[in-house]
Amino acid sequence: VTRPRLRDLGISVGRLEPGDGNAITDVPGVLVGHATVIADEPRTARTGVTMIVPRGGDIWENYAFCGVHVFNGNGEMTGIPWIEESGLLGSAIGLTNTHQVGIVRDELVRYSVEHGHVDAFILPVVAETWDGHLNDIDAFHVTAKHARAALTSAAPGAVAEGGVGGGTGMVCHEFKGGIGTSSRVAESPAGTWTVGALVQANYGSRQDLRIDGVPVGREIGLDEVPGPGGKDAKGSIIVVLATDAPLLPVQCKRLARRATVGLARTGGYGHDGSGDLFLAFATGNEVPAGGDGTWPLAMVRHAHMDPLFLAASEAVEEAILNALCRAETMDGHLGVAHAIPVERLAEVMARYGR
Amino acid sequence: VTRPRLRDLGISVGRLEPGDGNAITDVPGVLVGHATVIADEPRTARTGVTMIVPRGGDIWENYAFCGVHVFNGNGEMTGIPWIEESGLLGSAIGLTNTHQVGIVRDELVRYSVEHGHVDAFILPVVAETWDGHLNDIDAFHVTAKHARAALTSAAPGAVAEGGVGGGTGMVCHEFKGGIGTSSRVAESPAGTWTVGALVQANYGSRQDLRIDGVPVGREIGLDEVPGPGGKDAKGSIIVVLATDAPLLPVQCKRLARRATVGLARTGGYGHDGSGDLFLAFATGNEVPAGGDGTWPLAMVRHAHMDPLFLAASEAVEEAILNALCRAETMDGHLGVAHAIPVERLAEVMARYGR
Amino acid sequence: VTRPRLRDLGISVGRLEPGDGNAITDVPGVLVGHATVIADEPRTARTGVTMIVPRGGDIWENYAFCGVHVFNGNGEMTGIPWIEESGLLGSAIGLTNTHQVGIVRDELVRYSVEHGHVDAFILPVVAETWDGHLNDIDAFHVTAKHARAALTSAAPGAVAEGGVGGGTGMVCHEFKGGIGTSSRVAESPAGTWTVGALVQANYGSRQDLRIDGVPVGREIGLDEVPGPGGKDAKGSIIVVLATDAPLLPVQCKRLARRATVGLARTGGYGHDGSGDLFLAFATGNEVPAGGDGTWPLAMVRHAHMDPLFLAASEAVEEAILNALCRAETMDGHLGVAHAIPVERLAEVMARYGR
Amino acid sequence: VTRPRLRDLGISVGRLEPGDGNAITDVPGVLVGHATVIADEPRTARTGVTMIVPRGGDIWENYAFCGVHVFNGNGEMTGIPWIEESGLLGSAIGLTNTHQVGIVRDELVRYSVEHGHVDAFILPVVAETWDGHLNDIDAFHVTAKHARAALTSAAPGAVAEGGVGGGTGMVCHEFKGGIGTSSRVAESPAGTWTVGALVQANYGSRQDLRIDGVPVGREIGLDEVPGPGGKDAKGSIIVVLATDAPLLPVQCKRLARRATVGLARTGGYGHDGSGDLFLAFATGNEVPAGGDGTWPLAMVRHAHMDPLFLAASEAVEEAILNALCRAETMDGHLGVAHAIPVERLAEVMARYGR
Repeated sequence: VTRPRLRDLGISVGRLEPGDGNAITDVPGVLVGHATVIADEPRTARTGVTMIVPRGGDIWENYAFCGVHVFNGNGEMTGIPWIEESGLLGSAIGLTNTHQVGIVRDELVRYSVEHGHVDAFILPVVAETWDGHLNDIDAFHVTAKHARAALTSAAPGAVAEGGVGGGTGMVCHEFKGGIGTSSRVAESPAGTWTVGALVQANYGSRQDLRIDGVPVGREIGLDEVPGPGGKDAKGSIIVVLATDAPLLPVQCKRLARRATVGLARTGGYGHDGSGDLFLAFATGNEVPAGGDGTWPLAMVRHAHMDPLFLAASEAVEEAILNALCRAETMDGHLGVAHAIPVERLAEVMARYGR
Repeated sequence: VTRPRLRDLGISVGRLEPGDGNAITDVPGVLVGHATVIADEPRTARTGVTMIVPRGGDIWENYAFCGVHVFNGNGEMTGIPWIEESGLLGSAIGLTNTHQVGIVRDELVRYSVEHGHVDAFILPVVAETWDGHLNDIDAFHVTAKHARAALTSAAPGAVAEGGVGGGTGMVCHEFKGGIGTSSRVAESPAGTWTVGALVQANYGSRQDLRIDGVPVGREIGLDEVPGPGGKDAKGSIIVVLATDAPLLPVQCKRLARRATVGLARTGGYGHDGSGDLFLAFATGNEVPAGGDGTWPLAMVRHAHMDPLFLAASEAVEEAILNALCRAETMDGHLGVAHAIPVERLAEVMARYGR
Repeated sequence: VTRPRLRDLGISVGRLEPGDGNAITDVPGVLVGHATVIADEPRTARTGVTMIVPRGGDIWENYAFCGVHVFNGNGEMTGIPWIEESGLLGSAIGLTNTHQVGIVRDELVRYSVEHGHVDAFILPVVAETWDGHLNDIDAFHVTAKHARAALTSAAPGAVAEGGVGGGTGMVCHEFKGGIGTSSRVAESPAGTWTVGALVQANYGSRQDLRIDGVPVGREIGLDEVPGPGGKDAKGSIIVVLATDAPLLPVQCKRLARRATVGLARTGGYGHDGSGDLFLAFATGNEVPAGGDGTWPLAMVRHAHMDPLFLAASEAVEEAILNALCRAETMDGHLGVAHAIPVERLAEVMARYGR
Repeated sequence: VTRPRLRDLGISVGRLEPGDGNAITDVPGVLVGHATVIADEPRTARTGVTMIVPRGGDIWENYAFCGVHVFNGNGEMTGIPWIEESGLLGSAIGLTNTHQVGIVRDELVRYSVEHGHVDAFILPVVAETWDGHLNDIDAFHVTAKHARAALTSAAPGAVAEGGVGGGTGMVCHEFKGGIGTSSRVAESPAGTWTVGALVQANYGSRQDLRIDGVPVGREIGLDEVPGPGGKDAKGSIIVVLATDAPLLPVQCKRLARRATVGLARTGGYGHDGSGDLFLAFATGNEVPAGGDGTWPLAMVRHAHMDPLFLAASEAVEEAILNALCRAETMDGHLGVAHAIPVERLAEVMARYGR
């Protein structure tokens, strides 16, 4: 039985409408692929890789403008220096566990080499969160093949959520977490665009979880649904935002910074152990890898960015909640991460007037 | 009749306890002074200056570590280059209207010169928000005397809130806004410290206002309590955080970034026109202006920062709400900014289970 | 008798050609104006204001992309938060002394208000260096009228250098310094553009001065030409770079960072007391203040930026040297700043094979 | 026959004295290890790994304050988000080729895991430059064993320079480049400390090379000593600075920024393809990985930093020149990189009065 998404429960957050699939793949050309690594022998594996591929795979030859914001930097995201310098993304984006950022990163280089993108980007973006509670992370389960499989399986349309891909072993607000996605349609005087978010959610304390302002984490406390135990200090959240708006690099950075709003509204405040790293890319301009002369571009006026900012805030908030709703209970290396009980959730929301 | 603070209404936010005065002045040595400029002739004045003076006025000779975070940079705060470079604050902090940052800044220089702090800081910090709806801002009402009056009147203890000092003409979530303050006591394995916040709140749309998660702005809509009209795009919020914890500059910056959480939870998302600039200073280390050799310092371990982060988030959230609760209805240059109706607020909160 | 510029001495630095006037005004539309304040009674004044006005004065209605780099932040430049956020410059740029950034900044606001640029930028850019050795800076000599005069006198063509405008009282490598300018023509596969630099040079020790690699400061030491005495620790350099290339904000920031190269090659290393703040703007794109829809833009490919980087490095280096060559000996508040002796300079250069 | 270092040629740069070994290992506790990978079959290998290990290997349990500056970000350095957030370094620093940052990074994680540093840093720092001219980089020659060998062989004392370790296949100013090191003793009113630099130098055009201001690259042009051919656009330089001064994180960042000065003075200007990433760490404070309470620290006053800034500038300049002097001619994948001819160099320097 597949668990519901947030809206299947009759709950929604924010005031903008989602896109058709309520997923990052609503942004034209954005593909998502997962490789999920689950095994009990010889050592417990609950990990994997997720790949986000912009421009239908043409990203190595047609870059996207990009910006990064670090809300709390206790985490890793490769590729930041060149994004900061150039405002360009020229590769797929990988998400995996903390110990194995390297192998996924180098495999993206190898893929570029094999496909003749040798003049193109060799500074790929791979980010991580720590799944060591459910996953025996010191066993280094992820291989180059997993990274390649996530990449080659990337597809448009519905995105598997919860305990899949890079999100396999993740825990969020002491419930089972993982991958979540959502989108919003942003209408501004300059045009109508889609903003999509995908999160790898692995952060937060139970007591701080709130949904549309309702203190769900206090209502469904650790006495009712136990947490996985252990310390949660290594938790983190990676956010990837995509839009088809013609944003410049500075505007992508502005968009990325709004992920903080969605995170804060579900109960995150950037605890010390958290790697809260946010990346936003925009495909509304063509930026070919080669060629001479100057590139023609377009830019949304800053004064028309507010709908996009709101869309980013809301999409991130709902993506986190989708990760929580869709994730199924998982046992693993050091304990069990329970899924949030959706009937109880609906009941609590109703009691608070939602 | 003085209007109540948030807690006087039986409403509270967060899970930490406030300090004795629930104000930034709970941090030992922090003084606050206001100069309020209100006149109807010859041109409408609803403006002023607020000064925050660390270390009981000794800040020019005993610096404080300091950090800044800009959530949305459509605003001004002087002094940022040296804070970023050195991590030091060596002056009082001024808050005023957008057009007159300069006169307040230069007056702080003059004060330093007059008091023989000539070897000390001449790069003072002055920030602003735009009060042009209630205040005829193009009349440049603030004088050097107002800046000086705010500075010399700075005192410990209770802080006037709402439409006073730099907050005089400010509007927040389309209610009357202005100055607000709050504090939290943070207990960590490393010690117990106070975190105080003072805001000059002048941002936000009515529909986005939420209090402890309750959609107050939708419940008390513009049809029930009209906004001041006009565009709110120039709204902004300045946040000053103070603590007596021995934080290093990087840690002050971390603290400042948490103001985003408090802002997001009351309904801000950093709209384009907003100057959302946050500064945090820490007085737990002595940093004399002169002398040779090395300075002895102490530092809270990063792993023990979480209570301080939570304290900052909560103090900012409540400081904004105190600004709203305490501010009285004010008419002015282009219209009227209504105070939030506190009885209705209490009623709405109750209906949502608070 | 007017003193020569560097090239009048047969000395040049770098390998690119200067523009027609070897000045920032070689970039079409860039105007420069000075107000010089010199008086001996009642208190010694050796100070002033310089204004750089992009787009022939249309900058308030047609913004320019812009970026800032801070090499050492012991200085002030207002307007940085919005430049960092938006990548936009929407006002003239003022340069003055450290104590009076505010009055110049507010006067730029007043000018905007008077000229109906009320929807436009009210966050102007004003930077400073400290002229307290020659100028009795504590007397606050600069008035709003000086700021206005510098602004309204801004003109294309030749730029007065040395002890004029904001540079009036400045000292550089313990010789008389001040305003200097230079330009370079940059040819890249994407097009040919001009890069101009204007500096307010007030930094550095004698022993560190080098010209085209020749240790001029050691050859013409303090025993031969005394320095002004006192401490030089408050010295600084402000650099403004302009180009007509169609650069994006991230690219302007890249350009600004190259000012470090020109500074390093003349002997600067960013001493603690120095405010080494660099701003670059690019007028190759039209960015109207108003309007709906998206803006059409163009962008130089990053891979074609090298000639622009080299141009910026060289123009800054030569602008500093022009400030030194053109400045005349000046006595003032606490001493005398001697002009670099140009015959001796030529002799030293020849001896080192130049 | 071992080639000479710069000072063996009677040439020196700067005005401060080097430490005993004129190497980064002059900073007490700093160890350096190399693994050099050279093979002609089946595919050409000219690559390797260099490891810099602070605190005699105790860095995993006793962190060092740290700061990063990116002069031009076309390169990779993992670990930056946590350094920016915390100011802490908690691992060895690896240097290798562009394609294989990942494998070296993950091996540092594995080493931490094996040695029980599991509560300690799992966000290691690995940086790269591109050796694809001499090395068939697409063959991915570096293995985890190479990374481990560089780490376990790290030792105090003399450091092999030129074409060794991560510098094996590097090219600099179109001569053979690679690893170089140097140090300076900095005396300030606050104390006497050592600043050491190690560079992996792989940047620059021949025509821009200058040594102590002498235009060596124009004198010994490509007609006299051919370059390796091909494009140099992917060149880069990584700089690691170490000091035993008690610097705070903000001060480490200040120190790192001064590497720009040394680079600029040898002829670098940060060309577009260059990853010019600089890291500085300071061991003057003890920062244990665990424990409660607050840490006692010391800090050099900012006003006493100038000798350290100058030391960093000079050590970087000389480290680059040592890499050039010590490197031997190497043939490889696509051509030959010639060593700079040291007799000619001495002759040119003499002719320019050095």
